[in-house]
Amino acid sequence: MKYLCLNGPNLNRLGKREPGIYGSETLLDIDKALQKLAGEFGATIELKQSNHEGQLIDWIHDAEDDEIAGIVFNPGAYTHTSVAIRDAIASVNVPVIEVHISNIHKREEFRHHSYLAPECLGQISGLGTKGYQLALRMFLEQ
Amino acid sequence: MKYLCLNGPNLNRLGKREPGIYGSETLLDIDKALQKLAGEFGATIELKQSNHEGQLIDWIHDAEDDEIAGIVFNPGAYTHTSVAIRDAIASVNVPVIEVHISNIHKREEFRHHSYLAPECLGQISGLGTKGYQLALRMFLEQ
Amino acid sequence: MKYLCLNGPNLNRLGKREPGIYGSETLLDIDKALQKLAGEFGATIELKQSNHEGQLIDWIHDAEDDEIAGIVFNPGAYTHTSVAIRDAIASVNVPVIEVHISNIHKREEFRHHSYLAPECLGQISGLGTKGYQLALRMFLEQ
Amino acid sequence: MKYLCLNGPNLNRLGKREPGIYGSETLLDIDKALQKLAGEFGATIELKQSNHEGQLIDWIHDAEDDEIAGIVFNPGAYTHTSVAIRDAIASVNVPVIEVHISNIHKREEFRHHSYLAPECLGQISGLGTKGYQLALRMFLEQ
Amino acid sequence: MKYLCLNGPNLNRLGKREPGIYGSETLLDIDKALQKLAGEFGATIELKQSNHEGQLIDWIHDAEDDEIAGIVFNPGAYTHTSVAIRDAIASVNVPVIEVHISNIHKREEFRHHSYLAPECLGQISGLGTKGYQLALRMFLEQ
Amino acid sequence: MKYLCLNGPNLNRLGKREPGIYGSETLLDIDKALQKLAGEFGATIELKQSNHEGQLIDWIHDAEDDEIAGIVFNPGAYTHTSVAIRDAIASVNVPVIEVHISNIHKREEFRHHSYLAPECLGQISGLGTKGYQLALRMFLEQ
Amino acid sequence: MKYLCLNGPNLNRLGKREPGIYGSETLLDIDKALQKLAGEFGATIELKQSNHEGQLIDWIHDAEDDEIAGIVFNPGAYTHTSVAIRDAIASVNVPVIEVHISNIHKREEFRHHSYLAPECLGQISGLGTKGYQLALRMFLEQ
Amino acid sequence: MKYLCLNGPNLNRLGKREPGIYGSETLLDIDKALQKLAGEFGATIELKQSNHEGQLIDWIHDAEDDEIAGIVFNPGAYTHTSVAIRDAIASVNVPVIEVHISNIHKREEFRHHSYLAPECLGQISGLGTKGYQLALRMFLEQ
Amino acid sequence: MKYLCLNGPNLNRLGKREPGIYGSETLLDIDKALQKLAGEFGATIELKQSNHEGQLIDWIHDAEDDEIAGIVFNPGAYTHTSVAIRDAIASVNVPVIEVHISNIHKREEFRHHSYLAPECLGQISGLGTKGYQLALRMFLEQ
Amino acid sequence: MKYLCLNGPNLNRLGKREPGIYGSETLLDIDKALQKLAGEFGATIELKQSNHEGQLIDWIHDAEDDEIAGIVFNPGAYTHTSVAIRDAIASVNVPVIEVHISNIHKREEFRHHSYLAPECLGQISGLGTKGYQLALRMFLEQ
Amino acid sequence: MKYLCLNGPNLNRLGKREPGIYGSETLLDIDKALQKLAGEFGATIELKQSNHEGQLIDWIHDAEDDEIAGIVFNPGAYTHTSVAIRDAIASVNVPVIEVHISNIHKREEFRHHSYLAPECLGQISGLGTKGYQLALRMFLEQ
Amino acid sequence: MKYLCLNGPNLNRLGKREPGIYGSETLLDIDKALQKLAGEFGATIELKQSNHEGQLIDWIHDAEDDEIAGIVFNPGAYTHTSVAIRDAIASVNVPVIEVHISNIHKREEFRHHSYLAPECLGQISGLGTKGYQLALRMFLEQ
Repeated sequence: MKYLCLNGPNLNRLGKREPGIYGSETLLDIDKALQKLAGEFGATIELKQSNHEGQLIDWIHDAEDDEIAGIVFNPGAYTHTSVAIRDAIASVNVPVIEVHISNIHKREEFRHHSYLAPECLGQISGLGTKGYQLALRMFLEQ
Repeated sequence: MKYLCLNGPNLNRLGKREPGIYGSETLLDIDKALQKLAGEFGATIELKQSNHEGQLIDWIHDAEDDEIAGIVFNPGAYTHTSVAIRDAIASVNVPVIEVHISNIHKREEFRHHSYLAPECLGQISGLGTKGYQLALRMFLEQ
Repeated sequence: MKYLCLNGPNLNRLGKREPGIYGSETLLDIDKALQKLAGEFGATIELKQSNHEGQLIDWIHDAEDDEIAGIVFNPGAYTHTSVAIRDAIASVNVPVIEVHISNIHKREEFRHHSYLAPECLGQISGLGTKGYQLALRMFLEQ
Repeated sequence: MKYLCLNGPNLNRLGKREPGIYGSETLLDIDKALQKLAGEFGATIELKQSNHEGQLIDWIHDAEDDEIAGIVFNPGAYTHTSVAIRDAIASVNVPVIEVHISNIHKREEFRHHSYLAPECLGQISGLGTKGYQLALRMFLEQ
Repeated sequence: MKYLCLNGPNLNRLGKREPGIYGSETLLDIDKALQKLAGEFGATIELKQSNHEGQLIDWIHDAEDDEIAGIVFNPGAYTHTSVAIRDAIASVNVPVIEVHISNIHKREEFRHHSYLAPECLGQISGLGTKGYQLALRMFLEQ
Repeated sequence: MKYLCLNGPNLNRLGKREPGIYGSETLLDIDKALQKLAGEFGATIELKQSNHEGQLIDWIHDAEDDEIAGIVFNPGAYTHTSVAIRDAIASVNVPVIEVHISNIHKREEFRHHSYLAPECLGQISGLGTKGYQLALRMFLEQ
Repeated sequence: MKYLCLNGPNLNRLGKREPGIYGSETLLDIDKALQKLAGEFGATIELKQSNHEGQLIDWIHDAEDDEIAGIVFNPGAYTHTSVAIRDAIASVNVPVIEVHISNIHKREEFRHHSYLAPECLGQISGLGTKGYQLALRMFLEQ
Repeated sequence: MKYLCLNGPNLNRLGKREPGIYGSETLLDIDKALQKLAGEFGATIELKQSNHEGQLIDWIHDAEDDEIAGIVFNPGAYTHTSVAIRDAIASVNVPVIEVHISNIHKREEFRHHSYLAPECLGQISGLGTKGYQLALRMFLEQ
Repeated sequence: MKYLCLNGPNLNRLGKREPGIYGSETLLDIDKALQKLAGEFGATIELKQSNHEGQLIDWIHDAEDDEIAGIVFNPGAYTHTSVAIRDAIASVNVPVIEVHISNIHKREEFRHHSYLAPECLGQISGLGTKGYQLALRMFLEQ
Repeated sequence: MKYLCLNGPNLNRLGKREPGIYGSETLLDIDKALQKLAGEFGATIELKQSNHEGQLIDWIHDAEDDEIAGIVFNPGAYTHTSVAIRDAIASVNVPVIEVHISNIHKREEFRHHSYLAPECLGQISGLGTKGYQLALRMFLEQ
Repeated sequence: MKYLCLNGPNLNRLGKREPGIYGSETLLDIDKALQKLAGEFGATIELKQSNHEGQLIDWIHDAEDDEIAGIVFNPGAYTHTSVAIRDAIASVNVPVIEVHISNIHKREEFRHHSYLAPECLGQISGLGTKGYQLALRMFLEQ
Repeated sequence: MKYLCLNGPNLNRLGKREPGIYGSETLLDIDKALQKLAGEFGATIELKQSNHEGQLIDWIHDAEDDEIAGIVFNPGAYTHTSVAIRDAIASVNVPVIEVHISNIHKREEFRHHSYLAPECLGQISGLGTKGYQLALRMFLEQ
């Protein structure tokens, strides 16, 4: 079983960016933890990041052709503005779990609304980088 | 380490109530799975349910005196209407993770807003009864 | 055939409370008229009242186990604030008719909205205590 | 005692129009049931229908001159858009009960609001064509 | 003359709960100060607290039978959500003064609105636990 | 010079309808006063009334062909709901002054908005039936 | 195959009315172009216009009995205000295409919303009187 | 009989200011026309202008002591922002007619709302400086 | 200790203005009661009133230089419209208590919001002119 | 004459994506039909698709330099979120017709609003892939 | 060339007032820097401040008569509430640049909206007292 | 010291695009003026433009690594829609000044709101291409 971990805009700056909100771990740390967990279940996972909305849409389309079994997706700020990514998720037969490192309900009001959530399997927010692992485990233990 | 699993209104009818939305598992099934998981980590967890807003507030207050290490909380419909439970969570030094079995973002608009989320550690929704276990694991693996 | 007549908060004060809005009849008067009408159809009806949201939810749950054929329900102020009672109605296979003694559309704007109505069979408002009898008759003549 | 049953736009297509929402009965069936009920009380009732807002206003005005004792009124879609009919009801000394066959609170949000309800005696919705009879009975048993 | 001091949800945790917002005094301290002030005027006052909306409604109803001359009421979070308590206040002939320890206008927007205020004699907010005494004095010096 | 005085729904009931709001004068009284005033300036005016939105539109269209120099228009409730009449006014080269007998700003909020006013020359409200004469004088003294 | 072209309020003034917005063609010009196009496909089409909402509803009802294969409908201002016409469209088994000569999205905000569009097959706006022909062609080439 | 004509902010610039909206007449021209009309009825009128909200309030208060029989009031921009002037009008027993030279309903949306209108006798807008004379005539002919 | 009692627009008309809302006491009566109370605590208080927003701002600025220990402030209508007074309060190190004679929550909706409250120590409303004394006592007993 | 057919995000998945909403035709099918139609008029058309907002903007800019005579544009989800594409359309002298395959007014509310429509010549929605051809024909027959 | 620097309410307290937001410079410091800059270009500038809305309007009117070449205007809190100052700016042929010391978009939501900006040449915010100089330079270098 | 001037979507068309709004200068003209000004202070500045949101984010990230001392940023339409760029600005320790050539407060309402402003140092709008130089000067003279 192959899984995909997609990361949206500014997540390449994780660890450097506003550590008071996002902590000091980097995408590399997240990748390592996911690889380890996937390995325990005999599965593989690939982590990708882009600041480009169109690139994220392309990758979601590709996931179906690549027979990806599930996407752990932290869409960053596109969560709140992208109907196009919402439609991309709806256009593939691959389940997606939306993950947010910070508790989006503690932040500005425009971050409380997700265009993507209604097309995802579910949403995990506020549980730090651990949220990625819980999302992957959800797929692995099904 | 002792944990608490609180359940709000109508969750006593889980399994009987709108299985298309909530599935066929009962609170008993959830309890068993949580006991098993807690046991693996040498911890204990107690599951309680009430349809009374005031009762839920009382239990949250008691959690601090009882030295509960974390609350897995499915507040049901009080999620959307209870400022009193929000204040109860804010009044204790016990971390709370809000869990919803169904994906609340796929349902009526008034279910998209949670009064409690800003005072909780985080929120998991849409991952079925498995969400309870992921929340507990979050506490156990910390 | 058994029917149930549920009454929400402050209806215990009917007759004493704001007679300009609610008239001078009491719950006892309502009960008598309902007993008489049910008797004409060889049916029975029980009238209950509580100021506690949780108690009303419990009674709605019990109605299914008690094989109640229909609930005539005046939810009082919980009409406008209780998602939990809405969910309770959705969780049982017992038809409910919502009754309001006063014409809620003549009053404050927050009384124009009912959280319960979409899960009820229908709604009668503004027809005084006579509305209870019309609701029961709806069940009896079906 | 003479009563009037007024019906607004599209109700001439009852039985043909969206039977999933409105059932298969026609205005003729409703008329028969009302005649029978009125007859039991020694009263008469006349049923009229028009798709024209102005016509409905004219009939409401006429009702006072004709000494009509009460109007059972299903205003159809004009419920949600006609201030003119609201003013017509306010301009006559004839009580009006608003009736809706379907439960308007289960439908599109713009159908939840009635311009007419605050000027009517009361409102019955969701009880099918039976709602007409309950409204008439309200007048007859007063 | 007998007075009543009612306290809503989470006020049992006063002194422990968010001292930055609510200060370090407890309900006991408030009670003592009220007893002393009432005593100066030859009056008595009883202080009660509950987390249950229904219980608070019951106590308001009882106040009239008990010939209470005025209620000093800190409704806590139910201020912002309870139409049922509003109706309870409207249903008795006992004047009520709403008291808030913190300045609710400095806090989250949903705390700026009170369902109860229009049915109360008046409202005091932001003057700390001293607000209880000012409210009582209002009754005593009338 | 020929003028037209148009009157919308329910104004045929002027004098009978809610005299507390609209006074006891009838359309006939208004007509007489307008005839007298027009006569003083050597002009003529015709008064018409209809409850039908479409009829009012037809008359507005006809006004241009009939070389009407100005319309004194009390559109009644269609003021607040009719985009079609707004478009009719915009489609003719005849100036229109909107007149309301009562002060619409003292009444329900939905009466504060006029769809027609932006296409009219101006608006007079709250000056009783005298408003009709002031509007006509505006045309006559130009 | 028979088609119908319905036109709502003020469209009888096309060519005279606000040519900056609607151009200088008249309904007669539109009719000729539609006749020519229908003729090419061996079909017929009849063009009707009314300023009366009720008349338009009547014609829509009649369309089903007359076995009309499709309606090209420019509802004019009733687009934005008529729930009754929306229900009329929903009540017949005749497909309707909504046509607007001007680009309604360039005009006042209240013209951006159509009550009818959700019950129509589709909508064409801003393409001038040519829009009528495109709508008819849609039916003819199906 | 003495009358007062009050003018709010920027009206001292009438004739210089945005003539496309307000025309080329000055306050002096308005004053002359009002003096002439008042003289015809044996009455007097005084015209005042201020850019200061507080000054306008003072003058309204003084009007009662000065036994002013009516105020013709063009409040300019304070129409849309001043609750204090609204309260001043409510605090005196002198009828006020609100006058606007331009049609406020053709302008920015924030100009459509008047805080003052509900406390005035009525409102005239869009009839140019002639509106002042019509308002005065309303008082004179009563 | 010196205190200041500031009063905003129209409060100079207290006793004459709408006695149904504000009672029959005048500012002079309020002043006397405050002088008496301040005297009991060996303090002084000065009462001022202005209809001018700018004047009130000037006085608030002066309060700091004059070493005023607290301001009892009834801002009248400026409560709801003046950001400038809000900023003035924020710009001085003098505590302010906002007082309203009437219960502002029982009145028009625009009176429910106070721009000033978030910068004040607290707010007292609905307790009549007695509210001034309670506010002063709050300062005196601190 | 050269034309351009632009397609926004996810339209590359047409035929695979939600066939219940979008049908089973692919972009290739659309392209073929457009080529055929353009050919009949001796014109050419090129079809492009991108998931990247910036790419679509670049192509719109290029259209002017390439002397494109008209753009048939299905902007997909960017319809509802992209002010940048709106500005791109406004920045070129090439007419654009907005096309939507599905009836956007039957779908989620956020799909009812188009940022682009006010800068386009017109809009066609709900007529399936046939809508592309009607838009092209609009250009060809002008 | 003569320039004017106008300052609205509370800016007389600059340096004393909330230095965390506004810094420690005073109006005198600003004046000096502006004098120096104007001097470099052989121009003069005068700085004025008032807490009175009416005074600011008077000064804006005077600016035209005084042949002021441009106004650097920090309107303080009147930015958000004064339509009267907006109209004053529109009534003179003197360009105005709105300046805010703090970044108004980082503060309370009601500070994000400016009634004045649409009538000004432009707006500078968040650049501290330096913003005054940049605005003046804009005029000087034109 | 190195500075960066970033330009968002459609600014490559400056000079060609809507000159009534944006003037006839091109990005090249802006670049020259900025180079000249930077040179006077011994600093350098580079100007970049992209229509791609992701590209702009990448450049903002790079600015920190490149030790850019400040960014003059005209985000074009992404001002109003991009939370992702907002987060990018928050993720770097480089001050940003937002610049708009036109006065955004004179244009459509959706252009009045900036997602970026709260994370920028400040904002300059409406001062034409001169605004770029004022922003750069702000950095240079600090």
